[in-house]
Amino acid sequence: MTPEHLSHPSPAPFSFDLIAADRSTWARAGVIHTPHGEVPTPAFCPVGTQATVKALSPRELEELGVPMILGNTYHLYLRPGAEVIARLGGLHRFMAWPRPILTDSGGFQVFSLETLRKVDDDGVTFRSHIDGSEHRFTPEKVIEIQELLGSDIAMVLDECPNPLDYDYNRQALRRTHLWAERCLKAHSRPSQALFGIVQGGIFADLRAESARVLTGMGFDGYGIGGLSVGETKEEMLRTLEGLMPLLPAHKPRYLMGVGSPEDLITCVARGVDLFDCVLPTRLGRNGAVFTPEGRLNLRNAAYREDPRPIQEGCTCYTCRNFSRAYLRHLIIAKEMLGARLNTLHNIHFLQELMRQARKAILEGRYTAFAEEVLGRYRPTDEEARARNRAAFAKAASEKKAL
Amino acid sequence: MTPEHLSHPSPAPFSFDLIAADRSTWARAGVIHTPHGEVPTPAFCPVGTQATVKALSPRELEELGVPMILGNTYHLYLRPGAEVIARLGGLHRFMAWPRPILTDSGGFQVFSLETLRKVDDDGVTFRSHIDGSEHRFTPEKVIEIQELLGSDIAMVLDECPNPLDYDYNRQALRRTHLWAERCLKAHSRPSQALFGIVQGGIFADLRAESARVLTGMGFDGYGIGGLSVGETKEEMLRTLEGLMPLLPAHKPRYLMGVGSPEDLITCVARGVDLFDCVLPTRLGRNGAVFTPEGRLNLRNAAYREDPRPIQEGCTCYTCRNFSRAYLRHLIIAKEMLGARLNTLHNIHFLQELMRQARKAILEGRYTAFAEEVLGRYRPTDEEARARNRAAFAKAASEKKAL
Repeated sequence: MTPEHLSHPSPAPFSFDLIAADRSTWARAGVIHTPHGEVPTPAFCPVGTQATVKALSPRELEELGVPMILGNTYHLYLRPGAEVIARLGGLHRFMAWPRPILTDSGGFQVFSLETLRKVDDDGVTFRSHIDGSEHRFTPEKVIEIQELLGSDIAMVLDECPNPLDYDYNRQALRRTHLWAERCLKAHSRPSQALFGIVQGGIFADLRAESARVLTGMGFDGYGIGGLSVGETKEEMLRTLEGLMPLLPAHKPRYLMGVGSPEDLITCVARGVDLFDCVLPTRLGRNGAVFTPEGRLNLRNAAYREDPRPIQEGCTCYTCRNFSRAYLRHLIIAKEMLGARLNTLHNIHFLQELMRQARKAILEGRYTAFAEEVLGRYRPTDEEARARNRAAFAKAASEKKAL
Repeated sequence: MTPEHLSHPSPAPFSFDLIAADRSTWARAGVIHTPHGEVPTPAFCPVGTQATVKALSPRELEELGVPMILGNTYHLYLRPGAEVIARLGGLHRFMAWPRPILTDSGGFQVFSLETLRKVDDDGVTFRSHIDGSEHRFTPEKVIEIQELLGSDIAMVLDECPNPLDYDYNRQALRRTHLWAERCLKAHSRPSQALFGIVQGGIFADLRAESARVLTGMGFDGYGIGGLSVGETKEEMLRTLEGLMPLLPAHKPRYLMGVGSPEDLITCVARGVDLFDCVLPTRLGRNGAVFTPEGRLNLRNAAYREDPRPIQEGCTCYTCRNFSRAYLRHLIIAKEMLGARLNTLHNIHFLQELMRQARKAILEGRYTAFAEEVLGRYRPTDEEARARNRAAFAKAASEKKAL
């Protein structure tokens, strides 16, 4: 079989060009070069947990202009297995996605397995959420897995503590840095970039230490872990503001697990280049969709006979063809097409937001752009966010892995 | 909102052109003209139960060359409601499907509600499988619903007995014919065709009587009901062979609820022009896919690392891009994309089979074509079919409606 559109990766090494920096904020525009093509930044990466961005096809993702997706090492290691994917030509070929892929290290998933893990300095032992079998991740192991998957950007193994727990974060940092160094040493694939992950919760001194140690090791880029997992939005932004000046300007900065339209806009202003989050796909499957004014919940009876598209003027396939009434019907009737069409719109919405943000940065008007977007967008209020988070945490603990 | 590709239906009335008849069999090629375009026959119509062909988008269906789909009156009446669909511009616009739609009368679904219905000469009272609410279908009501939906071809209300029960079939026939006449009288939409439905189980005398009575009423086409619901394949074919000479040659013949690749080939040889069935979509969601050699069950561990496409040389999106190993992974991991890609291939397979059958008829070589296809295709054996049917009937009775 010769999958279509699968360009043969050139051996071009990884690099990052910083193209423009905003005058009034820390927002920046750049290009990440990878063996599977370029990623214009700032960029949002949809999550393809199990070698598929839930509900969408690779063709749709390409048509949406998605420049890079994320794959989950934990999930792919367990099923179908990294060796299986390697024998089938690597993750790009396996899932017929010709553009760049970033893989996480599996750390975040393993540390979400509350009762199923045991961590020591050498690594972490855990039980599969699928069949309960016992497994062990070490820094060397997660690098080996990611090299087998053949992603364009790999991440180091890190310990992921509660961001509000100072003592745990302080202790975990030592291990996270030890593991980062071992990942760097184990990493052998020249066509694959490796990013370190800055930890330290919401604590400026710990973040500073983490930034100092990791940038000293010299990674291709820096993930920012341990945010958007329980702290308030103010704490997240303050942490970013303290951290950013300590990261090298010529390396990409990747805020892991974010997020919502408003978070993307505010965090780009703090100097973030890359984002990933399950939010647009998860919301879409549940009938919630983004508009410039905020989220709509299509399950609401108000949309029962609403002939309008989700968003007037939106150019996505969903909005060009289908009414809110139809999308509501599909979600209520539990039809797969509902999840597909909502997800498609949500991904389009975030891609378009990032394209517009980049254009605004290049044109030196990011502040005005951000003010306009945030002035119009009514975020889900903090109370609703807290409820959503609690429900999410509950669901996650029941499913045993995020 | 102006949905794309939604051509405004011309007021062209319904007609059927018989183009070619095979010399050695009763196979025939034709064209059905409808307000939403032409349907070259023989043709297979995927089923869009709840205003969506499960897992696929209208764009995909168009790209697959699907000429017509089926909508279920029972399901659409209950949810979202025929009036809602009418106010939103009719079923074509609601689901953004620009090509012809055939709607059933809901009779088959209602008569599958074993414990939830009460039938009398005037109509049938039933309870919704969704919320238990009570409803009543009469001949006039199902015509009204189908006119609200705006399908290109509507079907009469019929009683659907067990095809092996002579006495029940004989009694039901009287009611079916009475209802057919009332449907014909109630039908008022000139741009919509109305098909009668021949019943009579596997009994030649009853089928002959039903054909005589219904053709006397003068419908635009004739459905053949009560087959492929419990009788053997031999009984089905013998029934078709007895019935076909009694139906007018210049009207389309629609075998309802069929079917499998081998059934399509053998029934086209008996003079059938139209088919519909949930088989390709249902199988696809469960990981079973068609090949020229027979069905594959992709859940089978044998495909765990199989790099081949479902079918070598197949031109569908699935086969051009994805391995059996990947498709197996998606099904095992319960990812929606698995259902999508398998369904896409199965619909492509049946459309391609019908295109090739039509070409063979036009070129006067249908017998050779059918022999080649059937010689290569290993059908699921009768025992497995019986098991599948029993499991299906059980699932259906539990779900309360097919």
